[in-house]
Amino acid sequence: MTKKFNNVYISDSYTIAGIYEKNGPISNYFDLIYDKDLYYGCKTFEEAEEKMLSNSIDKLINKAKLIDSDIDLVISGDLENQIAASNYAMRNHNISYLGIFSACATFGEGLFIAGNFIEGKMAKNIIVSTSSHNMVTERQFRNPTEYAGPKKKTNTFTATGAASILITNNKKSKIKITSATLGKVQDKKIKDVNNMGAAMAIAAANTLINHFKNLKVSPEYYDLILTGDLGLYGKEILIEYLKEKGYDLSKNYNDCGLILYDIEKQPVYAGASGPTSSALVLSSYILKEMEKGKFRKVLIVPTGAIFSPTRTFQKESIPSIAHAISLEVKEWIHISMPSYFVD
Amino acid sequence: MTKKFNNVYISDSYTIAGIYEKNGPISNYFDLIYDKDLYYGCKTFEEAEEKMLSNSIDKLINKAKLIDSDIDLVISGDLENQIAASNYAMRNHNISYLGIFSACATFGEGLFIAGNFIEGKMAKNIIVSTSSHNMVTERQFRNPTEYAGPKKKTNTFTATGAASILITNNKKSKIKITSATLGKVQDKKIKDVNNMGAAMAIAAANTLINHFKNLKVSPEYYDLILTGDLGLYGKEILIEYLKEKGYDLSKNYNDCGLILYDIEKQPVYAGASGPTSSALVLSSYILKEMEKGKFRKVLIVPTGAIFSPTRTFQKESIPSIAHAISLEVKEWIHISMPSYFVD
Repeated sequence: MTKKFNNVYISDSYTIAGIYEKNGPISNYFDLIYDKDLYYGCKTFEEAEEKMLSNSIDKLINKAKLIDSDIDLVISGDLENQIAASNYAMRNHNISYLGIFSACATFGEGLFIAGNFIEGKMAKNIIVSTSSHNMVTERQFRNPTEYAGPKKKTNTFTATGAASILITNNKKSKIKITSATLGKVQDKKIKDVNNMGAAMAIAAANTLINHFKNLKVSPEYYDLILTGDLGLYGKEILIEYLKEKGYDLSKNYNDCGLILYDIEKQPVYAGASGPTSSALVLSSYILKEMEKGKFRKVLIVPTGAIFSPTRTFQKESIPSIAHAISLEVKEWIHISMPSYFVD
Repeated sequence: MTKKFNNVYISDSYTIAGIYEKNGPISNYFDLIYDKDLYYGCKTFEEAEEKMLSNSIDKLINKAKLIDSDIDLVISGDLENQIAASNYAMRNHNISYLGIFSACATFGEGLFIAGNFIEGKMAKNIIVSTSSHNMVTERQFRNPTEYAGPKKKTNTFTATGAASILITNNKKSKIKITSATLGKVQDKKIKDVNNMGAAMAIAAANTLINHFKNLKVSPEYYDLILTGDLGLYGKEILIEYLKEKGYDLSKNYNDCGLILYDIEKQPVYAGASGPTSSALVLSSYILKEMEKGKFRKVLIVPTGAIFSPTRTFQKESIPSIAHAISLEVKEWIHISMPSYFVD
């Protein structure tokens, strides 16, 4: 399902990141870095994730010079069982809450919903949020398997942080969400939990092809195409697969997991993963560079693998999904030019 | 956040239920009952839940005389870690998928999103689905605590089944969704995992009060008000609490958990729970009796408790949320009467 939007704007964002993200290439773009440890001043990692997410919402509302009652709803999800980080974070806010889950593609799904609500004139200000925490996911997904066992090179490293973004109908904002494609669940029977990139590459490919076909655009339309967290090997699979299908991604495509971390220098294997991989990169580096004019048209495709520990123990494969969100800088020419010069 | 809808219709539904639901008072209203065992012809309970959910979508599409490509998107969620039942079910369908989570209030959240998409003219046909499975939730939430330990009288019993409902802009349908209130997360620091009804009653109260105030209606406006799965004791708490706030629920209010099961005769403690508690009751009994004219205005308030095993082990409280969906039978009088006789 692909929808075009004419009246959906990104007004502001707030990002919180941790130690590993501080040591990555885009640390200057984050609003807040907590680098003392992974506890964020809390007793447990889970509480830390809740607090980071909750703080990113509070600080975004402050940054945008709004109050809670200006926000129609918060849309948020995360990787914890029962979406606990988001649900617990929202007890601290007097705002209606819409809980979502699309694994590491959650931020993309949130932007899709927000875009449709704003374009359909059902809401004016929506915050889309997500979080992940390296140690929370390790506890949930990788216990009670051998802890500290050697990782494969295809493993990715869950990012720690939270990102919140304000989607509005406020035409003063520079950046528009111009279209969005909601993905379909793909399952190519991949069972290797240490190679999520391979499982997700096929979902990214499916969503990209649908997005290009439905909008009748080619990859070259965008200055930059980004997947969420395929990592080094998933990225290669996607480029190869789309080449076979007639789409050339070799020139303007990268993966957020390879932007958030420097995999040559950091101990993060094939790159960053988790819903904040794409959310941190989009809400800090990409938005700021779009405002400066480095990128004018960006297609971001958060990617998610459905890693259910129970189903995996039952020898099931790992389905995956991806959603595509198209961002464009508004044409500034119309400020000084008569309106008939611009579309 | 409360939205009024003018063009949102419930077109059709399909319900699948299990043994315990067969033995309850409304079994004649279900489309399909599988009463051989809890495996639904599958190897695991988790696979059974996936198949029930997937089948309810397929059978709804057939019943509505549509094909997959007529459906803009499926909105679905469930209680499994990583919303596994919905995500795995959707690999069997070539339809865009929007994953949601609001614990046992998931079906209400799905109807809220679908209503906004249809009213905003962003989609024409949306399927909202949910499922739960008694043994899947027992495995997830109540292991490794002592299995077969005695239950408290305030415990509820997770329903087994799946429900799918088709929300459309098709004006031929008899039943409209006329408004919806998205809830806010509530946390009154209740920590007793054996008394979810108490934790959820406060969320139901908050959402009901917001719904009544925002729409300027009183409880008497509705023929029937239903919460999702408060059970016997949660129901009493809600009536008492709203009485203090000036709202009388004593005449037209019931809980779906007490409609799905007969708690006097069945071994289900305080009533049914799980997202299918409200979804099965709404999608079978309520819709059919609305079509027959028994109820003309129904407010359904699915209720959810965020029972995160990890956070509960860490001595955290249990936040909760509820969403309100208002259903009304279209006035049939206008078929034979001039339009100025009806509103």
